[in-house]
Amino acid sequence: MIRTGKDYIDSLRGRRLNVYLFGEQVDEPVDHPMIRPSINAVAATFDLAGSNPELATAVSPYTGERVNRFLHIAASREDVVNQNKMQRRLGQLTGTCFQRCVGMDALNSLHSVTWEIDEEHGTPYHQRFLDFVAFTQSSGYVIGGAMTDVKGDRSKAPHAQADLDLYVHVSRRTDEGVYITGAKAHQTGCINSHWLIVMPTLRLGEDDREFAIVGALPVDAEGITYVYGRQSCDTRSMEGGDLDVGNAKYGGQEAMVIFKDVFIPNEHIFMDGEYDFAAMLVERFTCYHRRSYVCKSGVGDVLIGAAAAIADYNGVEKASHIRDKLVEMTHLNETIYSTGIAASYQSVPMKSGVYKCDDMIANVCKHHVTKMPYELARIAQDLAGGLVVTMPSQQDLEHEEIGPLLQKFLKGREGSSTEDRLRILRLIENLTLGRNAVGYLTESMHGAGSPQAQRVQIARQSQLEFKKGLAKTLAGIAVDEGGQPTEFAEYMARVFDAEPGD
Amino acid sequence: MIRTGKDYIDSLRGRRLNVYLFGEQVDEPVDHPMIRPSINAVAATFDLAGSNPELATAVSPYTGERVNRFLHIAASREDVVNQNKMQRRLGQLTGTCFQRCVGMDALNSLHSVTWEIDEEHGTPYHQRFLDFVAFTQSSGYVIGGAMTDVKGDRSKAPHAQADLDLYVHVSRRTDEGVYITGAKAHQTGCINSHWLIVMPTLRLGEDDREFAIVGALPVDAEGITYVYGRQSCDTRSMEGGDLDVGNAKYGGQEAMVIFKDVFIPNEHIFMDGEYDFAAMLVERFTCYHRRSYVCKSGVGDVLIGAAAAIADYNGVEKASHIRDKLVEMTHLNETIYSTGIAASYQSVPMKSGVYKCDDMIANVCKHHVTKMPYELARIAQDLAGGLVVTMPSQQDLEHEEIGPLLQKFLKGREGSSTEDRLRILRLIENLTLGRNAVGYLTESMHGAGSPQAQRVQIARQSQLEFKKGLAKTLAGIAVDEGGQPTEFAEYMARVFDAEPGD
Amino acid sequence: MIRTGKDYIDSLRGRRLNVYLFGEQVDEPVDHPMIRPSINAVAATFDLAGSNPELATAVSPYTGERVNRFLHIAASREDVVNQNKMQRRLGQLTGTCFQRCVGMDALNSLHSVTWEIDEEHGTPYHQRFLDFVAFTQSSGYVIGGAMTDVKGDRSKAPHAQADLDLYVHVSRRTDEGVYITGAKAHQTGCINSHWLIVMPTLRLGEDDREFAIVGALPVDAEGITYVYGRQSCDTRSMEGGDLDVGNAKYGGQEAMVIFKDVFIPNEHIFMDGEYDFAAMLVERFTCYHRRSYVCKSGVGDVLIGAAAAIADYNGVEKASHIRDKLVEMTHLNETIYSTGIAASYQSVPMKSGVYKCDDMIANVCKHHVTKMPYELARIAQDLAGGLVVTMPSQQDLEHEEIGPLLQKFLKGREGSSTEDRLRILRLIENLTLGRNAVGYLTESMHGAGSPQAQRVQIARQSQLEFKKGLAKTLAGIAVDEGGQPTEFAEYMARVFDAEPGD
Amino acid sequence: MIRTGKDYIDSLRGRRLNVYLFGEQVDEPVDHPMIRPSINAVAATFDLAGSNPELATAVSPYTGERVNRFLHIAASREDVVNQNKMQRRLGQLTGTCFQRCVGMDALNSLHSVTWEIDEEHGTPYHQRFLDFVAFTQSSGYVIGGAMTDVKGDRSKAPHAQADLDLYVHVSRRTDEGVYITGAKAHQTGCINSHWLIVMPTLRLGEDDREFAIVGALPVDAEGITYVYGRQSCDTRSMEGGDLDVGNAKYGGQEAMVIFKDVFIPNEHIFMDGEYDFAAMLVERFTCYHRRSYVCKSGVGDVLIGAAAAIADYNGVEKASHIRDKLVEMTHLNETIYSTGIAASYQSVPMKSGVYKCDDMIANVCKHHVTKMPYELARIAQDLAGGLVVTMPSQQDLEHEEIGPLLQKFLKGREGSSTEDRLRILRLIENLTLGRNAVGYLTESMHGAGSPQAQRVQIARQSQLEFKKGLAKTLAGIAVDEGGQPTEFAEYMARVFDAEPGD
Repeated sequence: MIRTGKDYIDSLRGRRLNVYLFGEQVDEPVDHPMIRPSINAVAATFDLAGSNPELATAVSPYTGERVNRFLHIAASREDVVNQNKMQRRLGQLTGTCFQRCVGMDALNSLHSVTWEIDEEHGTPYHQRFLDFVAFTQSSGYVIGGAMTDVKGDRSKAPHAQADLDLYVHVSRRTDEGVYITGAKAHQTGCINSHWLIVMPTLRLGEDDREFAIVGALPVDAEGITYVYGRQSCDTRSMEGGDLDVGNAKYGGQEAMVIFKDVFIPNEHIFMDGEYDFAAMLVERFTCYHRRSYVCKSGVGDVLIGAAAAIADYNGVEKASHIRDKLVEMTHLNETIYSTGIAASYQSVPMKSGVYKCDDMIANVCKHHVTKMPYELARIAQDLAGGLVVTMPSQQDLEHEEIGPLLQKFLKGREGSSTEDRLRILRLIENLTLGRNAVGYLTESMHGAGSPQAQRVQIARQSQLEFKKGLAKTLAGIAVDEGGQPTEFAEYMARVFDAEPGD
Repeated sequence: MIRTGKDYIDSLRGRRLNVYLFGEQVDEPVDHPMIRPSINAVAATFDLAGSNPELATAVSPYTGERVNRFLHIAASREDVVNQNKMQRRLGQLTGTCFQRCVGMDALNSLHSVTWEIDEEHGTPYHQRFLDFVAFTQSSGYVIGGAMTDVKGDRSKAPHAQADLDLYVHVSRRTDEGVYITGAKAHQTGCINSHWLIVMPTLRLGEDDREFAIVGALPVDAEGITYVYGRQSCDTRSMEGGDLDVGNAKYGGQEAMVIFKDVFIPNEHIFMDGEYDFAAMLVERFTCYHRRSYVCKSGVGDVLIGAAAAIADYNGVEKASHIRDKLVEMTHLNETIYSTGIAASYQSVPMKSGVYKCDDMIANVCKHHVTKMPYELARIAQDLAGGLVVTMPSQQDLEHEEIGPLLQKFLKGREGSSTEDRLRILRLIENLTLGRNAVGYLTESMHGAGSPQAQRVQIARQSQLEFKKGLAKTLAGIAVDEGGQPTEFAEYMARVFDAEPGD
Repeated sequence: MIRTGKDYIDSLRGRRLNVYLFGEQVDEPVDHPMIRPSINAVAATFDLAGSNPELATAVSPYTGERVNRFLHIAASREDVVNQNKMQRRLGQLTGTCFQRCVGMDALNSLHSVTWEIDEEHGTPYHQRFLDFVAFTQSSGYVIGGAMTDVKGDRSKAPHAQADLDLYVHVSRRTDEGVYITGAKAHQTGCINSHWLIVMPTLRLGEDDREFAIVGALPVDAEGITYVYGRQSCDTRSMEGGDLDVGNAKYGGQEAMVIFKDVFIPNEHIFMDGEYDFAAMLVERFTCYHRRSYVCKSGVGDVLIGAAAAIADYNGVEKASHIRDKLVEMTHLNETIYSTGIAASYQSVPMKSGVYKCDDMIANVCKHHVTKMPYELARIAQDLAGGLVVTMPSQQDLEHEEIGPLLQKFLKGREGSSTEDRLRILRLIENLTLGRNAVGYLTESMHGAGSPQAQRVQIARQSQLEFKKGLAKTLAGIAVDEGGQPTEFAEYMARVFDAEPGD
Repeated sequence: MIRTGKDYIDSLRGRRLNVYLFGEQVDEPVDHPMIRPSINAVAATFDLAGSNPELATAVSPYTGERVNRFLHIAASREDVVNQNKMQRRLGQLTGTCFQRCVGMDALNSLHSVTWEIDEEHGTPYHQRFLDFVAFTQSSGYVIGGAMTDVKGDRSKAPHAQADLDLYVHVSRRTDEGVYITGAKAHQTGCINSHWLIVMPTLRLGEDDREFAIVGALPVDAEGITYVYGRQSCDTRSMEGGDLDVGNAKYGGQEAMVIFKDVFIPNEHIFMDGEYDFAAMLVERFTCYHRRSYVCKSGVGDVLIGAAAAIADYNGVEKASHIRDKLVEMTHLNETIYSTGIAASYQSVPMKSGVYKCDDMIANVCKHHVTKMPYELARIAQDLAGGLVVTMPSQQDLEHEEIGPLLQKFLKGREGSSTEDRLRILRLIENLTLGRNAVGYLTESMHGAGSPQAQRVQIARQSQLEFKKGLAKTLAGIAVDEGGQPTEFAEYMARVFDAEPGD
């Protein structure tokens, strides 16, 4: 069983993954300087489990053992809330995306969806799924989730695309299982995982049966090709020094995953053709996942700390406008956190027993995440001063002649180290323009659904008929109670009776 | 025991309150058309307890009976969360401030503060306080809290004011109790209450002992004068019709309360001279109270409903920009709600056993309340159209000749009632410019502390040393762990271990 | 010739206007306490012409005399800019809407539109129009513009409405002229004018010929009925005192104007059936009028002054967050002003010789006006403190017993007058919730087109093809210059060559 | 005379500049792939002068010839406005900072400041300065301005620093001139210039005489060392391909300039010891320069174009929320432009004859520039989709096996080129995270003064006494006209009489 970060890193070596980067196959991803920081970030999820088991592990009912929380099925509200607390802490410790939430949210969604498919269709998915969960818990594997198809012409359904490969689909069947073909874009942490769970990306219709496929497969299964995504400033990790990287140890990872007739045996298939459950899976997954963006409040803690530190180095930490900007950053950052945990605290049990967070509030949380980190980044750049984008290179700082001049001229407040000042500025650059801006900003925008996706979901749940009834009653307009009670009851259940099943 | 709204209204009659309004003493406030709507709003808190006891009552450990939740001491996280849920529901039902939160929050704060004063000073306040709680629970009384002194010269402490009356203070002492003198401004719901609890308004010093007085006294105690505050459009309630009022049934109430040698007997004194506990009381009270502004999400539901209804009447409810504005209103409104309940869910028990919400998140919640209702109001006016401020009077609508012309020209979409359309517009006017804009906007700004008060409190809790440590570690700067661990532990306790006492 | 405010007020007396208010006909509007403030505001436009002729008058080429700038046809960029400067000054002096911009903008639009109709159709409108301009300039009359029809079912054209009266139209014709029927809603300053110019409200089609009518008619023409619109706190002006009114002297005015077979003689008809020019008229009018909302920066100056004054009275004017909020108010207010004058400075001559402002920037200006005054109002309420909505009435202040107590308890900083402090608070209430909030906020939202109308117009002028060409060129994409040059030339003309006709 | 971009580039070759980058001296900056894009951007200023002389040149009164507008002294309002129009156009053409505004704004400021120093002190600076202007105009040289000292301990004046070199100062004097020592940080375009003008960076006192030095010196003067600043993604220009760079042709440049006993002969000294004029110079320079940030509206046009293009490629350009976001971007971008040109249109002549823009509005403009580009960037990333940060490298796209797969899976709407789609995404990355984000975002924040500097300047000019007088008058408070008239007159002059000298 993989227990420590070191175990984890060792477990990744020697696999024959087909990974492309800069037009070449990567020999050993673990040792590639541009890829390694993303592996370190996943490793931190193991180390936290060791140092803070209360936060980052839970006792599994399937194995009876303590397992990493990323592999745990939430059996209570507290379990859902603790996911968020662990996510914030890992954001603090790594300052980046640690890449395991997709897998955790996929497992939790599939728990209820497989149960409900079986209930409707008499299929054996739920037990297969539980077996798979127990297997990964026992081994300590990292699970990646693969949902986002490349989509092609967005005005057409999967089966109606000119090229069927634009959505992952069953390309061949045997008695032992299915073969899938297609591609998934923007896959976070896939190369760092041991297993991938493939899922459909949108609501499917009757003609899309072959696209209604959910299954688990090892990351090094035959037929998979990975093309590594570039990030802002990615090659700084290959320059040798650590200063200009900003955050030399940790980074994120996203890749395109291309499937060409990749086999999934029956025991790892959790949906096959039940197109009418695709939308449910997508919605439950995004419900968990939108609230998982609480991790950004942990990264925000790092950025607030960096902003406060640079104010110190610049000697302006007592200016009222500086202090006020730190308050504003904190106010925004805690808004992300508190909307996230509110969604988790309002969790209710599904039929299968797993707890699921509040959909409206999860969307409210994620919607803030598409804006607030950008505002935090803007304020951090304000506090940093222009030097954050005009600093010389580490090599210049270390140059025999120029180095001492830079030490002299770039010094901050009396008693502070020039190098430390520059290190904090490079961290701010890293989080606002550089490699981890990708995760902190752009991924915050698009991960788990772009802003408009949240607006659509908020609209769906806004229960306007109920609210119109409230207004009309107070305005003295006779209200026909006809259609309203149902919506009222749903509203009350959602907002007021968080556990209607009780 | 007062159980219903009707009981409550009856209980207010015949008291000889000294209330001034428009330069005259009010004969019977219950029957004054400008005051009555604020009494109706309090009555709604009784009626909700009848119709939804789960939400609006709780079983008291002191009486063993179900009591109104406004009189209940929170014995669990769920109790604190349920305060918020009740508040949102009452905001929905009344569209105004229902005025009982100050009393509820005062009772909950005093539970722990009296316990801790006794612990330090060996005083008998906690038991006295419990007796008072049991007494009010048994009778069903409404409790008002009186905190905000008029303050005079803000650069000077209470004892240093040219006129000591600018802060309420003990003006005379006997063996039986104390006499207090001074004035409290902006007192919400005071005339509608049965008892007032007087409390200091800020941190006090050694020389301010006579200002460190907390006690309960009946609203009709000798020596109290009330001067009723004017509100925007207040006299519309005295014009006869109901249409132009917007929300004819419910309104808020604020008054200045002037004390001239008012007696408090010993058994109703809960602090007397322990100046060092004044700050604790203020902070705990505002901690509860800032999160109590979740009620505005209930009023927001009404405004969203009104905005959606007027879009219907105007026949534009399907326009994408209209729908998007309703989404924006919902997103903001649910942010208020979710930050509020997050604060409540993160409650921890005090030494006395009462649960208190998270201070940081409570401040984040209230800080949003100082902005978001204004934005909701702006959007509602956008959806309303200009007619909301150019409509003719109810008398014109009912005029024999002009009325039919107005019916013809002010008609909305086919099949809708002109009068209903105007009623919704008047409700929007009421909530954004009129009488209930006072509670929904300006009180949201200043109640429980003005915006800057929240920023000060957020700053205090921002734990910048801990966050600087996170940033420095990731930036590769050697971190001295010297002073940080304490702050780290506090941070972890606040954010990650919501119940450190467990 | 009417020259002074007094002349103007005298000129309004004794007309037999058919005005309804509170279900009754108003005897003499000039002497009605609720109407008079709006007349005073128009009077200020005359008095400013006397005291600052450079700003508020111009020499007319039609009469050779100095005329009020509200009656002047802009013959240069400076003329257009000076309209804005006069508007800001009048906003400062009255703190309200002074109601003459609609007429000014209607005259300036009709100058070019009548010329272009004549050019196309060989009609005699332009000379008629010039004669009418000269006539009003010689007499000093106030001209109101009437554009906004009540509109009925917004999905149908005027001729397709179930009731044709929902758009003003020609209901009868004779050799001498036409008779019109219908209603115009939200008409600013109509009762205070001497003449009204009726105009269509939207783009018309071939079947809407009878709705394509523009003409001037005296305000007291037979067949016109006015129904006066209510405003927040309107009846405070009828209570006797001046304090609670906030701004006792000045206010705005909006009414519904109902036409029942009202005659317009041929010499006062400036469009009749040329439906294809209706859109041009609406667009030119709104182009001028959206930039006329620069007046709100003058009202904003008053609100900033009030906010600064209340900070003084409260003794907190040196706190950094207070000063910063005044900076924010100023920043927003000057944005309104500078986008307005930028639109005016970028004016270009029309074929008829009149100068017209930049349409894109005028829309940008108005769009800010739909948001920024709301934010200024919010900040002003923040600075005011809660007292702004909890103050007692003037009668209480003047009460023999209560008055002195209120004087004592509501006093601000040492040396300040309690009454003055309350006066400033009432002014803030007036501008943010009360009577002049109608003009400063809601009219800012909807006057000259609601926010979405500006977004549509900004979209139309955004020249995306040109901008895509810029981006593609820099991205290294081969650009087909095919369709782009025209848009490029238009863009350059708009932004870079403000006077392409030179 | 240097006339074309090619002339310019040739003129830079063969100079022996002492430039450090990555710890090494750069052999020939013109041929360095990381530096060349910044030289191309300056070259564009010459080519525009050739292709659009109306916009980018003016006739100099000193030479009688057409000269590049960047070297022209503004002799009218139109001249100042045309600077802005040229700046927007160059932003459109280069998508980056073209680096010549500092020099232009320095020349225009020094025109009036040297005149006023001479007036006070009888010095010969103005004529020397005019000779220098004529010389550079005749040769077509590029002038850089060097103002920002590294500043050291910000709580101490220059003469009180522990190390005097932290501010550039006269380190030695001879009869022929002075020698200066110190360093200037964040110098835009310095290596690309022919001459630098050194200026003090803040208000100086009597003891700071040696820091009150203004002079011109050739960029390759002996004793100057340049250390090139790193930018996000800077090394992509050195990878060989053009696709991943985003904007392969153009970029910005910033460097630290270190002076070690650099000689300035008397004829190139324009201030020497007149410490009392340092503040005037800084204020006039920033007044021009803050409005020069109008260039960002040109870069904004590119970003809007890129956002519109990617919406096309993604096939979603008709979705209402997409169109609305393009409107929002346009609204913000035109706000920057219109506040900028409003400042320029309100220019007034200084005593020396040069025109200077409005200080308040210039600050309002720049203050928007510190926020709006960030919001434009956020929206552009929204429209881009997640692919903007997960795209594979150019080498992968061109790989024999992987390339065709990527072509297939990353294709946008039917009929579009995959490569073009990726090129636009790389341009968006370039402008929002990459190399030109440095100029578009962070330089927009800090160039010409950080946000707080604008707030200080807005506060200084807010004329609160005048505005308080307006409010008090309307509130019915007797106003003492004592101190106000002066401020009123200044206010009127600033806002209403743009040319008080007329």
